[in-house]
Amino acid sequence: MIPNAYRSLHCNAVRPEHIGQNVTLSGWVNSARDHGGVIFIDLRDREGLTQVVFRPEENADVAALSHTLRDEDVLQITGRVEKRLTGTENAKLPTGEVEIVASELKILNKSDVLPFHLDRELSNEDMRMKYRYLDLRRERMNRNIRTRHKITNAARNYLDGEGFIEVETPILSNPTPEGARDFLVPARLSPSKFFALPQAPQQYKQLLMVAGLERYFQIARCFRDEDLRADRQPEFTQIDIEASFIEQNDIINLVEGLLASMFKAGQGVDIPLPFQRITYQEAMDRFGSDKPDTRYGNEIVDMADVFANSGFKIFRTTLENGGVVRAINAKGFAGITTGQMIRLNELAIQAGMKVKQLAFIKVERNEAGVLEYKSPLWKFFGEDEQKALIAKLNVEENDIVFFYAGSWDEACNILGRVRIEIANMMELTKGSKALNFLWVVDFPLLAFSPEDQSWVAVHHPFTRPKAEDVALLDAGEYAKVRAEAYDVVLNGYELGGGSIRIHESDLQAKMFSVLGVTPEEQELKFSHILEAFKFGAPPHGGLALGLDRISMLVSGEDSIREVIAFPKNNKACDLMTDSPTTVDFKQLRELYVQSTWKEKKKEEATATVQPVA
Amino acid sequence: MIPNAYRSLHCNAVRPEHIGQNVTLSGWVNSARDHGGVIFIDLRDREGLTQVVFRPEENADVAALSHTLRDEDVLQITGRVEKRLTGTENAKLPTGEVEIVASELKILNKSDVLPFHLDRELSNEDMRMKYRYLDLRRERMNRNIRTRHKITNAARNYLDGEGFIEVETPILSNPTPEGARDFLVPARLSPSKFFALPQAPQQYKQLLMVAGLERYFQIARCFRDEDLRADRQPEFTQIDIEASFIEQNDIINLVEGLLASMFKAGQGVDIPLPFQRITYQEAMDRFGSDKPDTRYGNEIVDMADVFANSGFKIFRTTLENGGVVRAINAKGFAGITTGQMIRLNELAIQAGMKVKQLAFIKVERNEAGVLEYKSPLWKFFGEDEQKALIAKLNVEENDIVFFYAGSWDEACNILGRVRIEIANMMELTKGSKALNFLWVVDFPLLAFSPEDQSWVAVHHPFTRPKAEDVALLDAGEYAKVRAEAYDVVLNGYELGGGSIRIHESDLQAKMFSVLGVTPEEQELKFSHILEAFKFGAPPHGGLALGLDRISMLVSGEDSIREVIAFPKNNKACDLMTDSPTTVDFKQLRELYVQSTWKEKKKEEATATVQPVA
Repeated sequence: MIPNAYRSLHCNAVRPEHIGQNVTLSGWVNSARDHGGVIFIDLRDREGLTQVVFRPEENADVAALSHTLRDEDVLQITGRVEKRLTGTENAKLPTGEVEIVASELKILNKSDVLPFHLDRELSNEDMRMKYRYLDLRRERMNRNIRTRHKITNAARNYLDGEGFIEVETPILSNPTPEGARDFLVPARLSPSKFFALPQAPQQYKQLLMVAGLERYFQIARCFRDEDLRADRQPEFTQIDIEASFIEQNDIINLVEGLLASMFKAGQGVDIPLPFQRITYQEAMDRFGSDKPDTRYGNEIVDMADVFANSGFKIFRTTLENGGVVRAINAKGFAGITTGQMIRLNELAIQAGMKVKQLAFIKVERNEAGVLEYKSPLWKFFGEDEQKALIAKLNVEENDIVFFYAGSWDEACNILGRVRIEIANMMELTKGSKALNFLWVVDFPLLAFSPEDQSWVAVHHPFTRPKAEDVALLDAGEYAKVRAEAYDVVLNGYELGGGSIRIHESDLQAKMFSVLGVTPEEQELKFSHILEAFKFGAPPHGGLALGLDRISMLVSGEDSIREVIAFPKNNKACDLMTDSPTTVDFKQLRELYVQSTWKEKKKEEATATVQPVA
Repeated sequence: MIPNAYRSLHCNAVRPEHIGQNVTLSGWVNSARDHGGVIFIDLRDREGLTQVVFRPEENADVAALSHTLRDEDVLQITGRVEKRLTGTENAKLPTGEVEIVASELKILNKSDVLPFHLDRELSNEDMRMKYRYLDLRRERMNRNIRTRHKITNAARNYLDGEGFIEVETPILSNPTPEGARDFLVPARLSPSKFFALPQAPQQYKQLLMVAGLERYFQIARCFRDEDLRADRQPEFTQIDIEASFIEQNDIINLVEGLLASMFKAGQGVDIPLPFQRITYQEAMDRFGSDKPDTRYGNEIVDMADVFANSGFKIFRTTLENGGVVRAINAKGFAGITTGQMIRLNELAIQAGMKVKQLAFIKVERNEAGVLEYKSPLWKFFGEDEQKALIAKLNVEENDIVFFYAGSWDEACNILGRVRIEIANMMELTKGSKALNFLWVVDFPLLAFSPEDQSWVAVHHPFTRPKAEDVALLDAGEYAKVRAEAYDVVLNGYELGGGSIRIHESDLQAKMFSVLGVTPEEQELKFSHILEAFKFGAPPHGGLALGLDRISMLVSGEDSIREVIAFPKNNKACDLMTDSPTTVDFKQLRELYVQSTWKEKKKEEATATVQPVA
């Protein structure tokens, strides 16, 4: 579309090779300066900046008009490209060697004074959201939005090249059984019934496999009506993938190539392939997390062999009763402050710790030059234990070791949380460009839910048990059954996950019976997919990646709001358009719904006109 | 992903070059035949078919198992590629020269007997929808879905190449002022408030222009809660485009290139560019439609000069009173049946005709070999008029001419409808591969609404008047003001349309005052966009294309349901997933809404427990 009537070049494209030529540019006044009565502006368009000077000797009318220019006015200028005077070049700008001497100036639109400066970061999130269209003018936000486009494009082209077909599945959809809370849409043509917005196109993608499409993907908008703790949005985008006649390995290879293409497009980096793979068991044992950040060490160490016969009774009896004793050596963190220690203990308690303080050993050299093991525990350990501990954890001067004794679950949760917080406190990843991708595989298929007193699916009820563990399923050893399920993780963030599905009705029936889903419930919740599976469902599986989070990580941001053009705030409101909004009573009546929010008031009102029975 | 454990090739890829090699294929039993005790099957995957034979001498166990195979069973087979016996080749199949002699057979999944045959077209639309996952197994539907993917990809790559950035705008959005009916979503975190699903991302895309993105596009899901007459869907997809610092011509050139890339990708054809451009006025005058099908003639002809002084009073007085007399010569259609004539008159009445019958002249040779002008009118015309009429309309043997005298609007509507129906009756486009693209430009900016007794925007209130017509706007000559608005049309279908927008607040204020939108209403309905326009809105404009309809035309289908994977029926229901559905009362309570559908019953119930005031 360039050149056209508005411009012959983008603002970033003017170069010494254009010197002497006339060019036409359009854009915004990024800044205006008066140097001895001559106006200089930086003209900005989405690609960059060019300096424009309005010399009276070039065109007196234009120069006069230039004195009215204000920041963010929209201009079209024509002028001659000239070399800047020696000493006035700007090496920071690609166009810094030249300037335009304007002979024509059209003010396409005037701008009011903006509510905030574009060149300063704004800490008032509400202001940023209300004026999102101005916030997006910042170079960083412009770049983020364009990076998101680039990596999305790269993903699509990669998947297209691999024979995947993008299919649009319905947004006006059905409630998700056993999912999060759904957004509902009253169906006017089916009064009293509702559509639900999809939490994921899970059933549609499996049905497309039954349809024989074999390789499907979709950059799919998904919706969850949850309370927006942390960095969540009520609507989000996932790269949804499903394929037939494939195994876990095929999906893993595919997704590695996909992510590599996205990071290449977004950051220009070549990610080394393949990614490391570790089992869920190993991830929990070593990192206390199923999405470990492996950019730093501080791994969790099993201390069972050291303390099996310990004189320290708490450790010994914990081990005797089937519990674990685990430790983290936070190397070089002996200087932990009291405030940090309090914070660590708070987090450990939030993570399930039942005592008030983490046991620790702090190793510091005293004034006499002797290493001291400061700890409430040290004195309870035998000399052999002390030596074994030092050797096993490689304990050195300035280290601090944290212990936890309890159940495996507790130890993982607590020490996993402690490990992350220590890394934060020590700023271990500050400025790091590392991209530590890894796969976590062999997730458990089932977990026992104490609230429901029943087994629930860890991934979802269509997830396949590993072939070698089906015997365990038959034997009722549910906790030991591993799933053909996998997550891909980057620097402690889960980028996505998926599974190979069950495609045989007898295995599916067994799975439902383990989950305690009665045939009646199956009929109610899953009838169309169970029926579909009777008509030649192929072996299939897939995965979904969170595009918002990947964009965030590619752009080096720490919130997905920085890579979403029009995000909602933590009350799910869009402050710019002021949505959600009240609607006309008539609109609701057409949908056969009414708000119950002011129910009390209404009931009173109704009561006064209610006929006496 | 190929080769993998399931297959070394797709079923369509086996060729004589593979003879003697072992291959592994996976797919569905398309058909099975028993030839003298030996089972032959066609194995189908998404790419095609290969014949597999289970010879007992190759593997007796496998051959025995093959007798259990039924249509649509899912198999993995391994075997040797062999040349088919001479005389048994199938020239219709790319794999027709070879067959696989199976040495291994894994039945991956059994299939029940399908509710309908895949190789026969099914007229029962409900059955197709209920078992959509089976309907999509048909080769035609598989091809349609893949074609849609291809053209969507082509569109994205084209727009990316032109510097357009895809941005995802919110689905949880705000009601559309002055649009169709919105789908509403109760906002749980803002009780009594609602989101609306977007009818188009119109305001977001204009705000992205204010944000300086300059070139935006989105393959955007849009929603309209309308009664589903004709070939509509409650959710549909549009290619939404907006650009800054452009003129109408830039958008037209861009979209021509875009459509060319899509038809190239979908049909392999090169569309000749540029498209013809005609004004709205010309389109209405010649074709009686703003989306004319120019694959056939039968154009509307202005007969004013012929009948200006006619002795036939109705024509003359119509002209004298500012009306029009227009005609269509349906060449070669003198054999019109009585039934067709009745149908034509019905349609003309639906289109606004105030008399019972269209005036006509039918030209046929009688038994004596003399041309006869059969008509209730002919005798009222003078000889000069008759000659002029014959010359002007090129009236020949077997033609039939239809007349309409009345207002210009009526004549356009009625003769436009008649023209289309004649083409249908004469099957003028049957088997045609013609792609008659054209632009309709210079739409009127404003139309007078007799119901509202006010002027309304033909496109929308942000549409720009043509620069040369602003004086007419100032002069109050609203009917004459043309807009910078344009539609692109193919074979009588509107593919899309758009406009250059108003970006100056004074012109926008003038437009609102013409439309009778008070400042209070502006504040209520358009406040954020009007405020945004104060902060340096660039000149901008755009267009939206209907992707469903383009897919339909590329695929040669006559309903958009054939190119949507999971469409809804004309009650907006998805028969496959049985959505919309009833939801739990608790779910609604959390959203602070209730259904009013059974209100009567509930009121009675409430009445009995209502305290007596």
